[in-house]
Amino acid sequence: MNIVKSLEWRYASKRMNGQKISDANLNEIQEAIRLSASSIGLQPYKVLVVSSSETKKKLAPAAYNQPQVLECSHLMVFTVWDRMTDSKAEEYLGLVQSERGVTRESLSTLVGYLDNLKKMSEVDFYHWASKQVYIALGTGMLAAASLEIDTTPMEGFNKEELDESLELSKMGLKSVVLLALGYRDIDKDWLLKMKKVRRTKEDLFLQNQ
Amino acid sequence: MNIVKSLEWRYASKRMNGQKISDANLNEIQEAIRLSASSIGLQPYKVLVVSSSETKKKLAPAAYNQPQVLECSHLMVFTVWDRMTDSKAEEYLGLVQSERGVTRESLSTLVGYLDNLKKMSEVDFYHWASKQVYIALGTGMLAAASLEIDTTPMEGFNKEELDESLELSKMGLKSVVLLALGYRDIDKDWLLKMKKVRRTKEDLFLQNQ
Repeated sequence: MNIVKSLEWRYASKRMNGQKISDANLNEIQEAIRLSASSIGLQPYKVLVVSSSETKKKLAPAAYNQPQVLECSHLMVFTVWDRMTDSKAEEYLGLVQSERGVTRESLSTLVGYLDNLKKMSEVDFYHWASKQVYIALGTGMLAAASLEIDTTPMEGFNKEELDESLELSKMGLKSVVLLALGYRDIDKDWLLKMKKVRRTKEDLFLQNQ
Repeated sequence: MNIVKSLEWRYASKRMNGQKISDANLNEIQEAIRLSASSIGLQPYKVLVVSSSETKKKLAPAAYNQPQVLECSHLMVFTVWDRMTDSKAEEYLGLVQSERGVTRESLSTLVGYLDNLKKMSEVDFYHWASKQVYIALGTGMLAAASLEIDTTPMEGFNKEELDESLELSKMGLKSVVLLALGYRDIDKDWLLKMKKVRRTKEDLFLQNQ
């Protein structure tokens, strides 16, 4: 399927049927997320991949018991670093140096960007890092759709409750958005029968500026 | 090209060669953006598509004269609505009703979501809507890469200056991020020779939670 066809195919499933995603497919979706674009290449996030029924049940109340949390194959919890630190900056500079075989001195522009991130307030850093997550989220949804795997992104959940339940603060992480991955329940999903609603090209784009 | 291959191919070009994107390809990228996932399907944004040299020159200083602004084929200015209003909510409810042939009464959950957006502060709405933009941004970059078209997302620009230059406030819009689209300059782009740096799967994912 090409990308436009995959996007036409996908929708946010309201009910899933419990079928498991194969390891090969899960790996391909994770590889797409891993290769997603990210400002200055930093990838300031971690993705928890929930597959056990116990953890799903534990998290369901924080997600207002939306059925996909239990009916999905895997639930991804996208989280961001709680702040930018010296050690995270050093670790990233080390990664770039070793991967590209360049000197530290050649990375002065990158050092400047990282310094700016360190100066950000915790709230501003959360918003900035969350935007990077949304690139990875969109890329992951599209990769899944290209494999005819359904996804439901969920912003509506209690972040404090979920963070506490997963003890994210101990890991220096904060939740941003959830992504249920699995297969649509053809009988139970009312949204499946509904037309996809999108704005027209004329509404969305101001051409020839 | 499949999605993982397209993601491996892409990088943020630092120099472009001025070659124009065909209408068919530009249309496909816009269609991918138009079909991107968006929370409650709202798509609370507009994308200005800058193709004229005059406008590119006018905007370049606000983007700190990054060369891609002038060397790209098209520069997309992703903007969000400055706030959620009653009339925007009504217009969207009307669109859903007419596209799906459903009654207003059946949309009470959606009405509730829209009411919550109306109550958001201007800053909170900006952050929420910007995240939706980043899904579209990532989807557009991937669609472009699948056509072997280069893209450079740019967060580093003076938003006040750019908004004023394009008179965005008159349209009730605020800029979020820029996307230069075009073709890499093989001779001049130093980044082209560099390896893509990405975190390992083990670093990015916490598996089997």
